[in-house]
Amino acid sequence: MRAIVYHGPKDVRVDSVPDPALREETDVVLRVTRTAICGSDLHVWHGAGLGASGFTLGHEFVGVVLDVGRAVQTVKRGDRVLACCTVGCGACGACRRGLLSGCTRFQAGPAGNVFGFSHELPGGQAEAVRVPYADANLFAIPSALDDEQALFLTDILPTGALGAELAEVSPGDTVVVFGCGPVGTFAQRAAQLRGAARVIAVDLDEERLAGARSRGCETVRGGEDAAARLLETTRGGADCVIEAVGRPELVQQALFVARPGGRIAVIGVILQAFEILWPLAFAKNLSLRTGLVNPQTQIPKLMPLIEQGRLDPTEIITHRLPLDDGARAYEIFAHHRDHVLKVVLSP
Amino acid sequence: MRAIVYHGPKDVRVDSVPDPALREETDVVLRVTRTAICGSDLHVWHGAGLGASGFTLGHEFVGVVLDVGRAVQTVKRGDRVLACCTVGCGACGACRRGLLSGCTRFQAGPAGNVFGFSHELPGGQAEAVRVPYADANLFAIPSALDDEQALFLTDILPTGALGAELAEVSPGDTVVVFGCGPVGTFAQRAAQLRGAARVIAVDLDEERLAGARSRGCETVRGGEDAAARLLETTRGGADCVIEAVGRPELVQQALFVARPGGRIAVIGVILQAFEILWPLAFAKNLSLRTGLVNPQTQIPKLMPLIEQGRLDPTEIITHRLPLDDGARAYEIFAHHRDHVLKVVLSP
Amino acid sequence: MRAIVYHGPKDVRVDSVPDPALREETDVVLRVTRTAICGSDLHVWHGAGLGASGFTLGHEFVGVVLDVGRAVQTVKRGDRVLACCTVGCGACGACRRGLLSGCTRFQAGPAGNVFGFSHELPGGQAEAVRVPYADANLFAIPSALDDEQALFLTDILPTGALGAELAEVSPGDTVVVFGCGPVGTFAQRAAQLRGAARVIAVDLDEERLAGARSRGCETVRGGEDAAARLLETTRGGADCVIEAVGRPELVQQALFVARPGGRIAVIGVILQAFEILWPLAFAKNLSLRTGLVNPQTQIPKLMPLIEQGRLDPTEIITHRLPLDDGARAYEIFAHHRDHVLKVVLSP
Amino acid sequence: MRAIVYHGPKDVRVDSVPDPALREETDVVLRVTRTAICGSDLHVWHGAGLGASGFTLGHEFVGVVLDVGRAVQTVKRGDRVLACCTVGCGACGACRRGLLSGCTRFQAGPAGNVFGFSHELPGGQAEAVRVPYADANLFAIPSALDDEQALFLTDILPTGALGAELAEVSPGDTVVVFGCGPVGTFAQRAAQLRGAARVIAVDLDEERLAGARSRGCETVRGGEDAAARLLETTRGGADCVIEAVGRPELVQQALFVARPGGRIAVIGVILQAFEILWPLAFAKNLSLRTGLVNPQTQIPKLMPLIEQGRLDPTEIITHRLPLDDGARAYEIFAHHRDHVLKVVLSP
Repeated sequence: MRAIVYHGPKDVRVDSVPDPALREETDVVLRVTRTAICGSDLHVWHGAGLGASGFTLGHEFVGVVLDVGRAVQTVKRGDRVLACCTVGCGACGACRRGLLSGCTRFQAGPAGNVFGFSHELPGGQAEAVRVPYADANLFAIPSALDDEQALFLTDILPTGALGAELAEVSPGDTVVVFGCGPVGTFAQRAAQLRGAARVIAVDLDEERLAGARSRGCETVRGGEDAAARLLETTRGGADCVIEAVGRPELVQQALFVARPGGRIAVIGVILQAFEILWPLAFAKNLSLRTGLVNPQTQIPKLMPLIEQGRLDPTEIITHRLPLDDGARAYEIFAHHRDHVLKVVLSP
Repeated sequence: MRAIVYHGPKDVRVDSVPDPALREETDVVLRVTRTAICGSDLHVWHGAGLGASGFTLGHEFVGVVLDVGRAVQTVKRGDRVLACCTVGCGACGACRRGLLSGCTRFQAGPAGNVFGFSHELPGGQAEAVRVPYADANLFAIPSALDDEQALFLTDILPTGALGAELAEVSPGDTVVVFGCGPVGTFAQRAAQLRGAARVIAVDLDEERLAGARSRGCETVRGGEDAAARLLETTRGGADCVIEAVGRPELVQQALFVARPGGRIAVIGVILQAFEILWPLAFAKNLSLRTGLVNPQTQIPKLMPLIEQGRLDPTEIITHRLPLDDGARAYEIFAHHRDHVLKVVLSP
Repeated sequence: MRAIVYHGPKDVRVDSVPDPALREETDVVLRVTRTAICGSDLHVWHGAGLGASGFTLGHEFVGVVLDVGRAVQTVKRGDRVLACCTVGCGACGACRRGLLSGCTRFQAGPAGNVFGFSHELPGGQAEAVRVPYADANLFAIPSALDDEQALFLTDILPTGALGAELAEVSPGDTVVVFGCGPVGTFAQRAAQLRGAARVIAVDLDEERLAGARSRGCETVRGGEDAAARLLETTRGGADCVIEAVGRPELVQQALFVARPGGRIAVIGVILQAFEILWPLAFAKNLSLRTGLVNPQTQIPKLMPLIEQGRLDPTEIITHRLPLDDGARAYEIFAHHRDHVLKVVLSP
Repeated sequence: MRAIVYHGPKDVRVDSVPDPALREETDVVLRVTRTAICGSDLHVWHGAGLGASGFTLGHEFVGVVLDVGRAVQTVKRGDRVLACCTVGCGACGACRRGLLSGCTRFQAGPAGNVFGFSHELPGGQAEAVRVPYADANLFAIPSALDDEQALFLTDILPTGALGAELAEVSPGDTVVVFGCGPVGTFAQRAAQLRGAARVIAVDLDEERLAGARSRGCETVRGGEDAAARLLETTRGGADCVIEAVGRPELVQQALFVARPGGRIAVIGVILQAFEILWPLAFAKNLSLRTGLVNPQTQIPKLMPLIEQGRLDPTEIITHRLPLDDGARAYEIFAHHRDHVLKVVLSP
């Protein structure tokens, strides 16, 4: 089958690779119908030093069930399903707590239990993909939703919702969201859905800020003086701050921008240690939370909102390309070309 | 001054009564600028047997500070303020917990700590009113809000929000609201604000149902078979049910309509014992909550939503009358005349 | 094999019945090593009108895995395990929310998803028993715990813990527990564990009250005037009230005894409608919660407490009998003979 | 009157200073009966660079009301009271949220709203002290409690409880507490009270570890390899970690020691920026919380536990000295002499 394969920094190619097959009785194999490129795929593309190449990328994908392991209870051949980006067994202590990313029975290696970061758990930017522990990690797509409406439930829509949840956004809150990319956009939407009075979007890109304004956000241009302007417009600080970019300096700004008793959620991926201005956190009684999304816990809440038209996740799609254009799609997305926000691929 | 005074069942009159004056150092006297009639005032109007007459009605009012006790810290003469319908000292254990209605230091008698139900705490359907413990019970009205936008923060907007809070409405939930009157309308709005995927409004009045639909709700006509239709449309039960009418039979319907693990909030006022189908509650692991609103805890969350235009409480006003038309206003409201939803009076 | 079979009101017998066998791939068959009689078994014994006879009783049992369905992932032949009294598939929406008793895929009939109430889900007061959806409903017993230490994790220890959880017992709270039977005892322990300042146990049986005092509770003798004495000793009401008997009049007393803002949990089984003094609940802003236990959600919290010696569930065992004495055991338990608190049977 | 005055680094003296007097109508003046030295006083003693000298130290004190401002409602001359270390107006938005340390009306200067760090808010290591906003910041001492039993409610007992609260300690949890000083001891007690299955105390001082063991904790000796030993004994990480020392390297260890989904509370005072190993927090979905205590929110929960004998805060007192020995008391406490844990002074 055809698949987007990592060959080295800034070198991904659409190759022919062996078809996936069931390995365990709890597996399912899907024929992929839509897949997308995520900001975290770019960590691989840039050569994040995972120490291997030759694996298939991609952790955002939906498809149709091709083959079903004997122990699988909840799906059957032909079902339209979405797969959670983070995989767990569903039955261990961590999984029962909703933390499948910390599963103690299924561990795909140092890159974690996310599709498309290693040979252990090849990704879904391909014509087909094997999904372990299907009962825990697949969700049926209601017939009322098309594939693109369901696609972002695999990762970034739950990630945005996780940001609003970790920041405990409540009715009447003022919420600052750093970042107007796909995840930031969904964090803004999630904050609105939870009743925020004000959602203030921050970005360096004027066009993305305009997009945020069109979605009912206020905007502040990013940069070194953003914190000062945010403190002013919030008259002393925001109830909630969501970092959806993945930069240490924005965590720092978040510490400045949060009001006393404020809650900071960091859903941007930061893969390095950094210096933190702890005395600010102490003097202001702040809470800081971060982590990988577990879509399994968010999907039951988000799916009905899409079905009822209260969320339209397809609003972020700017590019639709065939899977065979995968290499070019990565180029566009990595270099922010053509006003790209999100690229969807069709195998 | 002029005030609406209770003379007996179905007999309220606009009388001249003595001007209110400061009694304690923690008091404030307000000149009332707007006041409204609440559904619970109708309990008095119908002669709920409070055992007295001659007191001034009304617990929904805003105004301007006329006179300030020496111990008052937070308001000064001339400030535009709203008064919470439920009054507490603000400093006892119950008040510190946010339950000013259970204040252990200020107790206005058997009718409770609500304005306008007794001689102990005369109401605000008048040209002026004394407010005890002003620091705990008054809130400044921001200059961006006019009196009518602030008026319903005194009681029914927080009551609607309390319904959604007690029912723990969360993103993606399906919420049934019994009642499309003023409180029901605000409960529906509060449910939407908290991210409900579906809000299903129930009422006997077709016109009120049409109003609910225009606000984005689904509707089901009330009556004996409403529960069956609600179970069908919710495919097995609602996550949350809010009773905003005040009828035992609707609590019973709520027990049928809630899904296993569902949450029921009863914000309608029920002043009688009734038979409850407990086995339903047990078999379905339900939670039932009820109580008087404490606007003090809700206002900080609701005020910014009005300021930002995310809530427009004036949408329920159908009638604006002078205070001197108070008797007629009660007639209109009690008999549902002229498509009335809410009556506002100007002294 | 031998099993305790229901023949009619007050008529249970130890019969020879066919050995259980795997029926679905997700099943496990256990050899039962210890089983207990629960207060809710007495509803059957008294002839609760379930409309059938000839089924095996019992929903509290531990054992050793005899036979394992192909799809079972988490246990293997020879494992020592406990089975949750309430059974769910573990994968549907309700189960993922922790409400296995409301499972939408496994439904054992009108008696609910509890072992030993019907032919659909025969019980474990037997030499062996079939457990459906083993991955969701079995828990391994750590080698440090003997069977009796694990036995009450199947139902009544989690039920007591559920009472404290639904009543939201928090550090410093005053907690009234109606009932000093097995479930009441565990509710008292759970309240202590959550940091209650005072646990006040209520019962009609002086001996059981003495037992409660020996466990660090205060006690009040039950009866019509109990509410008055509880209000006095709590100086105005308890933060939390747990009903662990199952009588409507105790729910009524709970409404009197709860303080404003108090939380009432009803874990006693009440199988009838009754009149509720709603105005009390409204005037005091009470919350009422009830429901079947889902041990699956409680066990991960309770198991370590037993392992660390902070809970010793065997404290309630007063009688240990062979399974063959099952009929006599029911007599003893039903008639409160021999100072019985809890009977354990060994097949 | 006599008072312990800061003269410069490592130089505190008992001086004669002017008696305090009422300044605002909301003030109270107390005659101090007991006061204690807190670890955070040592930051001043070491010369934390607050930029001034000549002020009275101390934020842990109880006493008798000497003089009462006209606007004070809740205390009268002669009452025995304790004062919260952190002072707020009680009526602004932050105070109503329980965050008096972030009060927007009362701001004592850059050292924050804590007694004894500046001339703006002189401390209570003195014969008398002025307390602003007495209604919000004083609590009556029940007659059943002596002064020493109430003394630590002013700061460190609530601080320990805050640690357990921020770490969300729940029944069955494994909790690591870094530090066995006074605050660490109370954090351990608070964790036990909330139902922790295991409390593992860490310290460098063998004698303090022995004390922790005598209070039912497990212990691990601190140092660079502590994290490894903690990971081993917790089999993969603790549910909760409480840092009660105030050292960046212990926050780092906390990141290692927390399990996936774990909660870290930092109640030790860290007055510097430091490097944080963020990727650990991200990969493990951790939450980090810190902040100044607001005893006002903790006291209603802790007071009954002392009254009922479930907590005995006097257990940490090792030294009782007259106020006139204040300078020596600081030396003893700062240099860990004489097996000191806590010093109480009597004016």
